Amino acid sequence: MISVQEALRIILDNTQDFGVEEVPFLDAIGRVLKEDIFADRDFPPFNRVAMDGIAINHRYFEYGVRDFKIEGIQPAGSPREKMENAAYCYEVMTGAVLPENTDTVIRYEDVQINSLMAKVNLDTLEKGKNIHTQGKDRQQGEILIPKDRIITAAEIGVIATVGKSMVKVAKVPKVMIVSTGDELVEVDQIPEAHQIRRSNAFTLVSLLEKLQIKATTSHATDNKEQLKVKILNNLKTHDILLFSGAVSKGKFDYLPEVLQELGVEKQFHRVAQRPGKPFWFGIKNHLNGTNKAIFAFPGNPISTYVNCLVYFYPWFAKSVGFTLKEETVILAENVVFKPHLTYFLQVRVEVKYGQLLAIPIKGNGSGDLASLTMADGFIQLPQAQTTFKKGATYPLLRYRNS
Amino acid sequence: MISVQEALRIILDNTQDFGVEEVPFLDAIGRVLKEDIFADRDFPPFNRVAMDGIAINHRYFEYGVRDFKIEGIQPAGSPREKMENAAYCYEVMTGAVLPENTDTVIRYEDVQINSLMAKVNLDTLEKGKNIHTQGKDRQQGEILIPKDRIITAAEIGVIATVGKSMVKVAKVPKVMIVSTGDELVEVDQIPEAHQIRRSNAFTLVSLLEKLQIKATTSHATDNKEQLKVKILNNLKTHDILLFSGAVSKGKFDYLPEVLQELGVEKQFHRVAQRPGKPFWFGIKNHLNGTNKAIFAFPGNPISTYVNCLVYFYPWFAKSVGFTLKEETVILAENVVFKPHLTYFLQVRVEVKYGQLLAIPIKGNGSGDLASLTMADGFIQLPQAQTTFKKGATYPLLRYRNS
Repeated sequence: MISVQEALRIILDNTQDFGVEEVPFLDAIGRVLKEDIFADRDFPPFNRVAMDGIAINHRYFEYGVRDFKIEGIQPAGSPREKMENAAYCYEVMTGAVLPENTDTVIRYEDVQINSLMAKVNLDTLEKGKNIHTQGKDRQQGEILIPKDRIITAAEIGVIATVGKSMVKVAKVPKVMIVSTGDELVEVDQIPEAHQIRRSNAFTLVSLLEKLQIKATTSHATDNKEQLKVKILNNLKTHDILLFSGAVSKGKFDYLPEVLQELGVEKQFHRVAQRPGKPFWFGIKNHLNGTNKAIFAFPGNPISTYVNCLVYFYPWFAKSVGFTLKEETVILAENVVFKPHLTYFLQVRVEVKYGQLLAIPIKGNGSGDLASLTMADGFIQLPQAQTTFKKGATYPLLRYRNS
Repeated sequence: MISVQEALRIILDNTQDFGVEEVPFLDAIGRVLKEDIFADRDFPPFNRVAMDGIAINHRYFEYGVRDFKIEGIQPAGSPREKMENAAYCYEVMTGAVLPENTDTVIRYEDVQINSLMAKVNLDTLEKGKNIHTQGKDRQQGEILIPKDRIITAAEIGVIATVGKSMVKVAKVPKVMIVSTGDELVEVDQIPEAHQIRRSNAFTLVSLLEKLQIKATTSHATDNKEQLKVKILNNLKTHDILLFSGAVSKGKFDYLPEVLQELGVEKQFHRVAQRPGKPFWFGIKNHLNGTNKAIFAFPGNPISTYVNCLVYFYPWFAKSVGFTLKEETVILAENVVFKPHLTYFLQVRVEVKYGQLLAIPIKGNGSGDLASLTMADGFIQLPQAQTTFKKGATYPLLRYRNS
């Protein structure tokens, strides 16, 4: 049995490269950017009027002029006009190019307009006021967004502005999620007294959807030969296999055996943690040099869930090149946990005065699926300790943000 | 000009009901649950074996028996067996029903098995050990998930388990996002010197996608009649209209005028805030009793962005019935802001020892789109103050979690 840290190290040493693809920029939301985004021109690309009002030549204001004849109008979206008489003014709209021979904008609030004359109601006026000068935000050629980050609304705006209608993002792997166990029936079936419905496969689908992965699911019965054929086929068609169940000490827990018979190289089996101990992880090396990761999670609902967060999330993040933000939380109650295992404790997260508080949720062990709906995440309590004091901080694995 | 608080109050007094629909449960991820989810049976539904091993009748262990003849095997997914001889044992697998006449499970780790005999290597043994008793987690008929929450992976697991292959969720409204401004060209076009590409419409699409809304976009030029026809058509086909631009004091800012001509009732125009001041909000009352909200955001990129977070997000949350989690952060630097306005300041968020720290991002005003990519959210600094001290806490509007 290895430690959580050792298991994580091995997993992160075995990442996969799924390559890069180009997609329409609006399909890139939530994906991992795989190219630097450069400014195609200065930001702003011209001296941009930042307020609706009039543009003048500041010199005349300094001379004491307050009444300016309106020579013309410069709407947004029109080519740059030229003010012929430097003592006049131009009406200008937000987003417009500043007209030639003007250098300062006075907003309508500070101006009185009578037919063709504008009267400025100001005693002082800063030169260059209300102008967003060319290149002030960013210079042409500058990197606006470095690659390897998750694309949010903020990035979409910039990507649109620089004209990247197609953008390079990390390819999403093809993932097959296989549930195991003869006790499972489909969601739309009525289980017999000794049966339950499949659920782990679908919680995994949901957890992967947060990573923009659209996984497919299937089910394997506790039949060794059928399991073997199923895995063989899935290894051909998918980049990653996730299993739930059949990795413990049961008579029908054929999975580790079958995977090894199929040439999947075991990296480890069993991790010193609760829940999720019987986790099995292996790599299938293909002749063409591609490696495929196989995550075989224990079948208890909380075990599957927590292991996906603890292992699959960082493995995937590293594989596609981004870094998961690390969060810590302040434990809100004393906790005692005696076994010499890393303890993943379900918590509700509350923010109070800028502090992240973790309130433990009392579940009934790794089978208590419903307790997950009362929590927001898990905190990771280290193996070396048995008492965990209120007020101490621990890493948080969060699955609910709202 | 009204305050941010007053604007929010008006907006939240004008929510819309989009109704409820039933969708396949896997399509419900991220949606708002609109029915309570009940336990269709006890959780677990039977006395469930929690460890692979043998099941015995504890009385015999108490009598001193340590060698148990194996009478049979109870796999997961098989109907409940009956152990005929109470002094014998049954091999049992995790997830199986506990066989009749047994009451305690001993895991394989504590047993030695030789052909048909199991030898228990324990001195003491708690009765009922390693059994997840029927109804321990939840009783049949109990509410497992109350309605009006966002469905995460945790809820998906429970919904699957209770057999809700179809689940009731809040309907997603049809939203039209209209950008305005003659200076705008499409993303795949090369702008002239005085033009820029459309971007606000797409940042809004991305921000709404986080709420599971798939919005459509269109563009209106600065032509009053065309704008009017466009709005009239969109009011017929959509539940909500969002605008970006044409609400300020410019000569071609026809939007407030046109909306009022079309019978949209202005609720307010201009809010004492920076950025985002010229925000216009109105309601179109239809004869059939439905009201449609029109959010007309100012056209500067940061203004549009922040107003969507400040106003549209809570309005939508209340409309569909969930509560946005309120977050506060600790300001990491002193900030001075003199205007008598609520200040939405861009910040990067860092978590240190369970504390959420807000590090201000120095942008170049409301036109500096690229600065959004360096931030994770905005903090809301109240109008009544001008100096904001390092260490004080303020509300956070976050748009980036990873």
